[in-house]
This record gives sequence, C-alpha cells and structure tokens, in this order.
Amino acid sequence: MRIAVIAPVWIPVPPEGYGGIERMLKLLVDELVEMGEEVTLFAAGDCRTRARQSICLEKAPTEHMGETLFDAYHVGQAYRAIAAGPFDLVHDHSGFLGPAFAAHLPQPVVHTLHGPFTEDTRMFYRAFRDDCYYVAISRRQKESCPDLNYLGVVPNAVDTEEHRPCAEKGDYLVHVSRICEAKGTEEAVLMAKRTGNRILLAGKIDPGLDREYFESRVRPHLDGENAVYLGEVSQEEKVRLISGARAFLFPIRWEEPFGLVMVEALACGTPVLATRWGAVPEVVEHGVTGFLADTPEELEKYLDRLDEIDPAQCRRVAEERFSPRAMALGYLDIYRKALQLHDSRLRRREASPVKAAS
Amino acid sequence: MRIAVIAPVWIPVPPEGYGGIERMLKLLVDELVEMGEEVTLFAAGDCRTRARQSICLEKAPTEHMGETLFDAYHVGQAYRAIAAGPFDLVHDHSGFLGPAFAAHLPQPVVHTLHGPFTEDTRMFYRAFRDDCYYVAISRRQKESCPDLNYLGVVPNAVDTEEHRPCAEKGDYLVHVSRICEAKGTEEAVLMAKRTGNRILLAGKIDPGLDREYFESRVRPHLDGENAVYLGEVSQEEKVRLISGARAFLFPIRWEEPFGLVMVEALACGTPVLATRWGAVPEVVEHGVTGFLADTPEELEKYLDRLDEIDPAQCRRVAEERFSPRAMALGYLDIYRKALQLHDSRLRRREASPVKAAS
Repeated sequence: MRIAVIAPVWIPVPPEGYGGIERMLKLLVDELVEMGEEVTLFAAGDCRTRARQSICLEKAPTEHMGETLFDAYHVGQAYRAIAAGPFDLVHDHSGFLGPAFAAHLPQPVVHTLHGPFTEDTRMFYRAFRDDCYYVAISRRQKESCPDLNYLGVVPNAVDTEEHRPCAEKGDYLVHVSRICEAKGTEEAVLMAKRTGNRILLAGKIDPGLDREYFESRVRPHLDGENAVYLGEVSQEEKVRLISGARAFLFPIRWEEPFGLVMVEALACGTPVLATRWGAVPEVVEHGVTGFLADTPEELEKYLDRLDEIDPAQCRRVAEERFSPRAMALGYLDIYRKALQLHDSRLRRREASPVKAAS
Repeated sequence: MRIAVIAPVWIPVPPEGYGGIERMLKLLVDELVEMGEEVTLFAAGDCRTRARQSICLEKAPTEHMGETLFDAYHVGQAYRAIAAGPFDLVHDHSGFLGPAFAAHLPQPVVHTLHGPFTEDTRMFYRAFRDDCYYVAISRRQKESCPDLNYLGVVPNAVDTEEHRPCAEKGDYLVHVSRICEAKGTEEAVLMAKRTGNRILLAGKIDPGLDREYFESRVRPHLDGENAVYLGEVSQEEKVRLISGARAFLFPIRWEEPFGLVMVEALACGTPVLATRWGAVPEVVEHGVTGFLADTPEELEKYLDRLDEIDPAQCRRVAEERFSPRAMALGYLDIYRKALQLHDSRLRRREASPVKAAS
C-alpha cells in the first residue's frame, strides 16, 4: 500500500521534547515500513523516520504554532503533491485543513482525531463528516461526537522498547504529567500524604497557565522528602522514575481523549490508580492492571491492595494492546476498509453519472 | 459570468465598523450584479449585498480572528460547494486557504492580495504562485513580490456616493487614520503647528499597540483649539470632516500596499499631501490632486500652494479611477483573461495526456 502520512507542521517527527502526535507518528510510520508498506511522511523540520520524507520547511515553525499561514503552506503543498502522485491512501493528522479539503483528493483520506471535542470542533468536523474516514483514539472520544463517518478506534501506542519494567521497585508512588488542575496533581499528593506514602512528581509547569496553580495548590504540600517535585525530566529519567514506582497515580478530572502516560506506566510494569474520566476505563482494567474509582478519596483505599496487581501482567497488556505493532495493525485494518468503501463509492458514482453531476 | 466570491470569514459584508476588505467587497459584488453578472458571495454573519449569499455562520466569528478552525470551516465548505457547483470562476479574498487549495478546483481562481508582503507571506505565495491568478491592489505591492502569476493591478474603490465634496471648505487640515507611528500622526500635527495651521485628527487608537505612542508623541502637541483629536468618528462624521478640510495630511512612513483613505479624501474633493511611501505616488498626482514629498518637512512647504489644486479635479480622478464601476470593470477584464488562460491550459493538458498524468 502506498500511504501518504501528513504530520502537523509545528514539530518534527519524532519530537525532541513535547509532541504527543509526533511521537505516535514516529512509532506508526516506522512500524508500517517494517511491515512492508510504502510510506511517505509529509512533515517539517529535522525528521528521522524510516519512511520516505517530504519536508516542506527545514526548520519546523514551532514558534508560529497555530498560524494559518504555515499550516496552509504545509497541507496545501502536501495535498497538491498527493493529488498528482502515486498514493493509494492518505492518513492525515493535520487537525483542520486535512478534513476541510479532503473532498478534493482522489484518494480516501483517513483522519485521526487527536484532541477532545469542544462545541467549535464538533461544529467543524460535522461540516466535513463524510469527507474523511475518521478514527478516534478512544471509544469515549468517539461517543462525545458520534455522528461522524468513523471507521474505528485505534488507541495510541507506547514505545515498548523504551518503556520497560526495572529489576526492582522502589518504595514510592509517582505522578508524571503536566502540572495542572485537570491532571489532578494536588489530588495525587494528598492521596499519598493521607495514606503515609512517599510520592515523586515530575512534569512541565506552563508558566502562563499553571504556575499559579503549582504555587498555591501543590508547593504547600511539598516537603523535599516524602513529597518531592523533580521538575521536567528527560525521557530516560521518566522511564526510570515510573518503572521504579509501586504505583502510578492519575486522579484526573477532565475528559482526556486518551492518556498516553497511563500506557507508559503499564509498559513499565507499574499499576495505574486512576479516576474514571475520559478514556481511563478503556486503558486500565480494574483489579488487573490497576484500580479505578470515582474520587481520589475512594481511589486511595486501593493503595493497600497493590500486591494484587502483577507488574508482568501490566507489561503484557501494554505489549498486546498498546505496542507499535498493535497500533499499525489497527490502522492497516482501517486503511483496507477505507480503500474498499472509497472504491465502491466511486463505482456507485460512475453507475449514476446524472446524480453525480447534479 | 457565474462568479463565486469568497470573503474572509471574520467580518460581515459590509462591515459595521472596521473591515477594509469587506467594504471593498460590498462595492465590488453590488456593482458586478448591477452590471448583469451572476455573483454568489460566500461569507459569514449578517451580510447585506445584492449578490446571492451563501452564509456559513449566522454570526461572524470576529472574536476568533485568525483561528484556523473557522477559516477552514468557511473556505473548506465554500470550495467543496464551488467544485460541485455551477460557477465559471472564483474570486478569492480569503488570505491563505484560497491559494493553498486552489489547484483542486476545476474553475480558475482569481486571488486579490490585500496585505503587505513579509518574508513569510512571500514564501507562502511563491509556493502557490501558479495555482491562482493573482491581482495586486497597487503596482508597488506587486513589485515587492514580482514573481507570482499576476494578471494585473486593480486599486480598491471608494464609495463615491457616500464620499462627496461639501459646499464650503472650513479653515483646517485633517488627518484621519489609525493613530500610530507608521501612519505619521505626530508628523501631521507638527506639520500643521510649524506652518500655523489648525489640524483635526480622528481615528482609532489600538489600546495594546498604540496607546503609548498617542500618550507620549501625540497628546503633548494637542491644545483643544488648533490641534484637536476627535476620537473614533462615524462614517458620516468622517465624510463631513474630510470634505470640509483644506487638505488631507498623510505623512506616512511604511510600505502601505494601497491607502484607501487617500482616495476617500479625493472623492471628498480634498487635496492630499503625502510622503512618497508604498502606493502613494500611484494614487496622488503631484500638482494635480495634491502634493508629494520625501519628508514631512519638505511636504509642509506645499501648504502655501493649496490653491493650485482644484477640488473638482480631485473628485473627477476619484470617480474615474477609484469608483466601484472602475474597480468592477478592472476585475471583469481580469476575469476574462483568467477564463481564457484557464481554458487554453486545460486544452494543452488534454492535448498531452501523458505529460499531465506524470
């Protein structure tokens, strides 16, 4: 299959730091190439993948993030090349421009929805509901805007080579995430404190949005010993930190469409304790790979029962359901469906030319 | 001719307040309809024109200005409808999305460049240089990025019904513009003060960008008598103010791609004194409709020679060169050229199918 994959223009694939979509794309395109598919990645900046690469800008315009000029520069040129080029199918991750102009491509366009739905994005995607074959990253995300032309749900993968269990667990809990109210940083610290556990925190503090939350709601609970904030850590440190923890605390309170960090914890053989929001119940199986509850207070009761969870089982689930191979197989299935549907749609149009011309 | 006109999504046509492109579009589409063309306007909000209207949102998303979602929602739906619809030609004013995806439309796309060129916009338009038929609003603008597929220069029109000379001139000079350094507000006041003339100023002060400039550079020169700032004025007050003035001072110092307010002054029978920047020399003819100079100091010498300029001549030039009819005729000529070129391009493609498929 000759697949054109369109990355967002803002960040290279893979990203150096922040960049969830770009990290997922690196795993996907490399795995598709490994499996024998012919993949061309349309992207910007210093990309290092095993796919053929069509790079529109030497330096990704990260500091211009959100500006229509750069988005249109990238997707416009990609779509023009794809319409004239030897491709069977397009897999688009561009956000809005891909779906808005998909109707003009001769090939089927598969579009992965990466964000949570809002009133505005619902309005947007509904206007182009039949122009793409949509893929959700969780059932929960799909249910929050069910009336699009979906072909399925494919959860994001984690790098199961990079995220591995460690030989021996330490005596601490961990919470790694952007430091903010939605992700439940304060709740995680309080859960640990109330149960007499040590907790280590890591993650970015957005200076604009979240500094005030950190100063007023998180810092007062820190003591440099049993509740410690380690700042932003490298990928390597993050794996060491998570794999050494007895449990990963994830007491979120927002409709997170997926939650990759939970899968990273499972791949590291670390049970996840999480509140039932967003895609959490689709990732963590209660009593098998962690524990679920409706509130942080209920959730903390399970800290006594961590020995019921087998770290090897967490790892197995990550490999089976959230490995790059599992994700690539999920998408290949979607691609085949899209090609079939597109084909029969074209044939229907040819069979009734009058209707098509009207 | 069946013409699809695409307005920007942000502001209705005509605009209530700010909106230069939307004001120009109102004049253009109404005049084209008057001349017998079949025009469909793709836009948002409460539009009032004589064209057929395809409105994507009841309320124009002005507060979301620049967000790709709304831009793509509008242009994506318009392009999809146009590709399938009974149109001979597209006249696009959408900024970036129109050119970026024009290659996919079966009809020729004429795109009017409304802004000044920057390094980024040059890069952008060059990537799509052959996908549209470009129109500049001044020769100067065209020269600042000459290597696009231009069909010509069509200056923007002024509403010559609304902007009319008044019976008797007052004894003052006028400067109406956004209050800022680029437009030369301080220079205009100093020109009047140094020559012992009374000056009235009007225009918006951007609270973020220009408040500090106004406070430090303009307000110290105001005296409530011979140098007065009137704030933002209504369209009606603006016409009264400009038509009653002995001269319009426009000592700008930036590469303004056009400068509609100069044409408004001419239509009001008011001579323009302007510095030679941007499109100024294309609009004002030295010694005929005003005076030009390289600096405000040189320019102010001509305040002694205002009686050499005939207000009726200013009005005549506005009617001949900058009326809605002149603009519509200019665009109709461009449209015909675009249709011819598009046609012969399609025929060339049909004649060499091998090359087209490669």
